[in-house]
Amino acid sequence: MRYTLAEIAAKIGGEVVGDENFVVTGINSLEAAQSCELSFAEEKFLKPAEGSKAGALLVPRKIETLQQHLIICSQPFQAAGLIMAEIDATAQKVTHSIAETAAIGSNVILGKNLHIGAGAVISDDAVIGNNCRIYANTYIGKKVTIGADTCIYPGVVIREGCKIGDRVIIHPNSVIGSDGFGFLQLGGRNVKIPQIGQVIIEDDVEIGALCTINRAALDETIVGRGTKLDDHVHLGHGVNIGHHVIMCAQVGLAGGVRVGNQVLLGPRAGSADHLSIGDRARLMGGTLAAKNLDGDKDYGGVPAIPAKQAIRQMMAATHLPKDRSRLATLEKRVKELEKKLSEKDN
Amino acid sequence: MRYTLAEIAAKIGGEVVGDENFVVTGINSLEAAQSCELSFAEEKFLKPAEGSKAGALLVPRKIETLQQHLIICSQPFQAAGLIMAEIDATAQKVTHSIAETAAIGSNVILGKNLHIGAGAVISDDAVIGNNCRIYANTYIGKKVTIGADTCIYPGVVIREGCKIGDRVIIHPNSVIGSDGFGFLQLGGRNVKIPQIGQVIIEDDVEIGALCTINRAALDETIVGRGTKLDDHVHLGHGVNIGHHVIMCAQVGLAGGVRVGNQVLLGPRAGSADHLSIGDRARLMGGTLAAKNLDGDKDYGGVPAIPAKQAIRQMMAATHLPKDRSRLATLEKRVKELEKKLSEKDN
Amino acid sequence: MRYTLAEIAAKIGGEVVGDENFVVTGINSLEAAQSCELSFAEEKFLKPAEGSKAGALLVPRKIETLQQHLIICSQPFQAAGLIMAEIDATAQKVTHSIAETAAIGSNVILGKNLHIGAGAVISDDAVIGNNCRIYANTYIGKKVTIGADTCIYPGVVIREGCKIGDRVIIHPNSVIGSDGFGFLQLGGRNVKIPQIGQVIIEDDVEIGALCTINRAALDETIVGRGTKLDDHVHLGHGVNIGHHVIMCAQVGLAGGVRVGNQVLLGPRAGSADHLSIGDRARLMGGTLAAKNLDGDKDYGGVPAIPAKQAIRQMMAATHLPKDRSRLATLEKRVKELEKKLSEKDN
Repeated sequence: MRYTLAEIAAKIGGEVVGDENFVVTGINSLEAAQSCELSFAEEKFLKPAEGSKAGALLVPRKIETLQQHLIICSQPFQAAGLIMAEIDATAQKVTHSIAETAAIGSNVILGKNLHIGAGAVISDDAVIGNNCRIYANTYIGKKVTIGADTCIYPGVVIREGCKIGDRVIIHPNSVIGSDGFGFLQLGGRNVKIPQIGQVIIEDDVEIGALCTINRAALDETIVGRGTKLDDHVHLGHGVNIGHHVIMCAQVGLAGGVRVGNQVLLGPRAGSADHLSIGDRARLMGGTLAAKNLDGDKDYGGVPAIPAKQAIRQMMAATHLPKDRSRLATLEKRVKELEKKLSEKDN
Repeated sequence: MRYTLAEIAAKIGGEVVGDENFVVTGINSLEAAQSCELSFAEEKFLKPAEGSKAGALLVPRKIETLQQHLIICSQPFQAAGLIMAEIDATAQKVTHSIAETAAIGSNVILGKNLHIGAGAVISDDAVIGNNCRIYANTYIGKKVTIGADTCIYPGVVIREGCKIGDRVIIHPNSVIGSDGFGFLQLGGRNVKIPQIGQVIIEDDVEIGALCTINRAALDETIVGRGTKLDDHVHLGHGVNIGHHVIMCAQVGLAGGVRVGNQVLLGPRAGSADHLSIGDRARLMGGTLAAKNLDGDKDYGGVPAIPAKQAIRQMMAATHLPKDRSRLATLEKRVKELEKKLSEKDN
Repeated sequence: MRYTLAEIAAKIGGEVVGDENFVVTGINSLEAAQSCELSFAEEKFLKPAEGSKAGALLVPRKIETLQQHLIICSQPFQAAGLIMAEIDATAQKVTHSIAETAAIGSNVILGKNLHIGAGAVISDDAVIGNNCRIYANTYIGKKVTIGADTCIYPGVVIREGCKIGDRVIIHPNSVIGSDGFGFLQLGGRNVKIPQIGQVIIEDDVEIGALCTINRAALDETIVGRGTKLDDHVHLGHGVNIGHHVIMCAQVGLAGGVRVGNQVLLGPRAGSADHLSIGDRARLMGGTLAAKNLDGDKDYGGVPAIPAKQAIRQMMAATHLPKDRSRLATLEKRVKELEKKLSEKDN
């Protein structure tokens, strides 16, 4: 990256205060930025911005105390995001080409402007939309359909019949559509229940690295549009996730769980099977749903209870050793009182 | 899939009540089935079956109130399983062939009727049994032996010397035989203890996606026959698992743990190192074994205690904030009593 | 392996007591060793060594009661480690060659004595140091640099721009440099914050199988030299780990966490985002840091408190159901006392 401040101001719709020809070679945080780099500060970070070594700053208004060259813009953080997106796109630019070592099956329908990396396997009857990036060493199973502008990072495995939407991102080595975990116990043995359903990943979903989203036994496991999963997330068979949900790292949902829209699941939150979690519910990290949870509420604890109550309970628990002594002391004092009163009676 | 009810009845040994020539194109749950699909209902689901849109039903006996075409069979769920298995086999049918881009080492012994996918690597001196499916982009290390009828899904890595039995299924991107986690602390540094043991996966084991089963430092990590692991399970070095064990998602067992036969480990259950868990023990989700656990019992909690006790403890904990107030109130009342009694004495 | 005791004594600087020409074909634990194998016993294991079937033993001094051939050496366990390392090196020996099916990009700088396995992808402008083993089906992104003597196991994905040091080991299917989890909530939707930082893995780091180390949003995620990660560890974006840290399996650290030197994180320990954990702090398994933690202390619990206190609290909690009854009984007794005293007053 190498831009003058004038060029950046033009990109984001801002106004330069300082040297328009000053050149920045990157964008970085207030703490880490060097003198050749751009940084950014929302209103509440204008004070720390004074100490930043950044050569130039995106800020919401003119500030006399800032020594750096400034670009004034209404939303500094979002403006920074635009520049970051451009840097990201450059760093990740790929050729529109299909590697010679990619294995394309029969009857595959390929869109335009595709990148298909070395060693990628696209199985029979798959459909790949326009502008997709299918990175190296991925595996796309039979009859899988992938929408337009979707990015499948290296090592991802998508098994047969799954449906992936537009603008989906799946990070490396995640597994979509492997068998759900279903067995019949017969005479002390575990007899496999075949898992013949599918997985549907809707538009604008992002799935972290090393996630597993299991195919349903019969019908469909669904991840709704705009939902974002961090790394190491596990969704059991038949799970149905709403729109614009956030799931942090290491979340695990057992089979058949239904999650509403705009739900937030903190790190390692989880749910027992076949429960439902209402729209806009927020589960703190480590929370375990053990019954249906209403929407529009915050939860914590194992099992999940209202968050405030969970925090009170957690705080109360820290007093347990001391409270046990208090209880024992009280018992002695009451016994003593009973004795005295009984002596009086006699 | 496209079968008449007569054909299905013949496959599963059932009897058609209704139109023998009615054609079904799939099998699905009571809730999701369409009029062209078959569904199934055990005795206790006959009532909900009345509302199903399924065109035909597998049921245990003739029911007048059901409008659908019926196939009467003694075990509807198991009969459905047979049909699901057939659909699954069709969906996953592979050619018996070795891809040109597969890399087969020297001195490899290959069985009959193999599928070896694109980019699969079979290292020197490996042995692959008959009818195995070794999917694309897998890595089979040196001297690995794999039994007959085993399925290794894409991206699986099996390191050198591991032994995999017959009819084993390993789901995508799992890692078998990577180094156990062993270090000597010497002068503030961590010196690696080489891990030269192996992993033995016995017959009929199923291993979920993204599992890690570490090689032992010296001898063997063993997963006993018929045992089933869900996704994201971690088994440390030298772990020894019995027969027909069930481990749910995100279970983690530290090094040297011994697990008996037919044990059930719920989601995220775990164990500290070198403990033993007896036959048919059942650990609720999230349970952590911190000492040896007897067999034929249910456990819960961190650390693990008998399940009923763990549930009672969990319930009691929800009263903690209120109980702390009760305790404080009692202290005041007792103090008051003591004061009054002392006044009487004087 | 096939050595005489004289040869082994020469390797490790020990002295044979017994038959110098006795041949051993492997090394194993005291319990598992066969008569053709070598085992080893530190001072405190000399008693159990008497019952071992091992044909020969590495021991710290001459013991009359041991029937086996002995090799006397000052540090038996470390001597065993040397022999194990040699066996390990033999088992993992690879050719110095670049597979024909490896895809090497343009402008790549390759060191000497490399092993690059089948299907490995080395992207444009990458730099690979001398003596590296880059196993099959790995993905090395653009501009990645890898130091000397580093081992990248099969299926590992390292995204663009990451820097890997000397003598680093990354176990199979781990993912380095995938996007950190950062979104802006705008109008009920999650807008991706591009992640344009990098990951730096310093010298002598070992990373287990199926780990994720996310690239920073802007600057760097750092894993300091000598640090060792077990399997399934997740490090969020911008995490900064010190030197010689140990992280057990399934640890998860949210974004921006700083961990000092020689810290120990037990299995499934974790931290909320942007906290700092001091040098030589030790977190028991399952501990969750919810505020900054001082160094040189042991911690346990959720949220983290001093370990002794956490254990006392855990123990106290097991008495909760009984203590609730005691509390209720006390309340009755106090009420009775109050009643009696009140009757006396009247």
